[in-house]
Amino acid sequence: MNIQTFVAQSIGSWRSQRSSHNLAFQHSEEVHSTIDITAVPATDSSVAELCVTHGFELDAVASPFHMAWEGESDWDDDQKMEGSCLLVPIPDPTDPLKGKLLRSTGYAETVPAVGEYRFTEEGMFVLETSYDRAAAEERIWFGTPHLRFRVSQIRTSDGQGILTASFASEIRSKG
Amino acid sequence: MNIQTFVAQSIGSWRSQRSSHNLAFQHSEEVHSTIDITAVPATDSSVAELCVTHGFELDAVASPFHMAWEGESDWDDDQKMEGSCLLVPIPDPTDPLKGKLLRSTGYAETVPAVGEYRFTEEGMFVLETSYDRAAAEERIWFGTPHLRFRVSQIRTSDGQGILTASFASEIRSKG
Repeated sequence: MNIQTFVAQSIGSWRSQRSSHNLAFQHSEEVHSTIDITAVPATDSSVAELCVTHGFELDAVASPFHMAWEGESDWDDDQKMEGSCLLVPIPDPTDPLKGKLLRSTGYAETVPAVGEYRFTEEGMFVLETSYDRAAAEERIWFGTPHLRFRVSQIRTSDGQGILTASFASEIRSKG
Repeated sequence: MNIQTFVAQSIGSWRSQRSSHNLAFQHSEEVHSTIDITAVPATDSSVAELCVTHGFELDAVASPFHMAWEGESDWDDDQKMEGSCLLVPIPDPTDPLKGKLLRSTGYAETVPAVGEYRFTEEGMFVLETSYDRAAAEERIWFGTPHLRFRVSQIRTSDGQGILTASFASEIRSKG
């Protein structure tokens, strides 16, 4: 597995069911959402902009993509959750199994972020992103070509406490 | 990571919060439970009995343990879920990263089962168990020494469809 194959397998529309565990209170939140992942040409100006922001060369880019989501939580039926971001992988020139991932907005905070990704020997994608006050670890793998699993952990930036953990089952939408 | 270290880290009492996803219907079930994991002496007669049942020598055994759970589902407050089983690891004599795991009762069916385990390079425990009509894959790893994560998948025995997937956050109980 490398980033090009992983992105290619991820392109499409997914129905996501996510359970989020607040570990201190053992509360759980259930979110159903639709996630659309689309390929973005490396020639798109938004890709060059994100590279400039983070000081990377455009030639280093592999398989940029766009992610948009729209969902509903069982905690608040009235509030629609939606968002989107651009993701730009920069593979390590000496090791195709790892690299950096630039994001136009982050997962835990709404600021641009640079994460470090790697693939395990099993082809599981692992992304670590540090924010000012927190660090996120995300693991994504395919159960079948049409089923993705995603486990995320958010911990305090000192690495000590894990605050929340979530699990998403994502099923490819037909057609 | 090997099975002895993994079992040693798992010994204790855990508060578990599990979200179970029915993938066809995108339903979710929430289960809170207490899990007690205790070491069992290899000299205990129950260990020898399970070895005989499955045709293994008692000298091949490493770190047998007992697991008991008691929980409640948000689907049915009146029904207590409880159970227990004996687990007996049989490490592969040529590769300490893998082996077999004998269970006095199974996870998906209440019959004895023999699963195949392995550790990934990151120290994640992966267990695959085949039953008559289903196969289960369970992944367990530690977020911290006092926090375990567990992702389980149950698929049809032909390996095609994944029927349910669940995610548990398990926090060590103090004292």
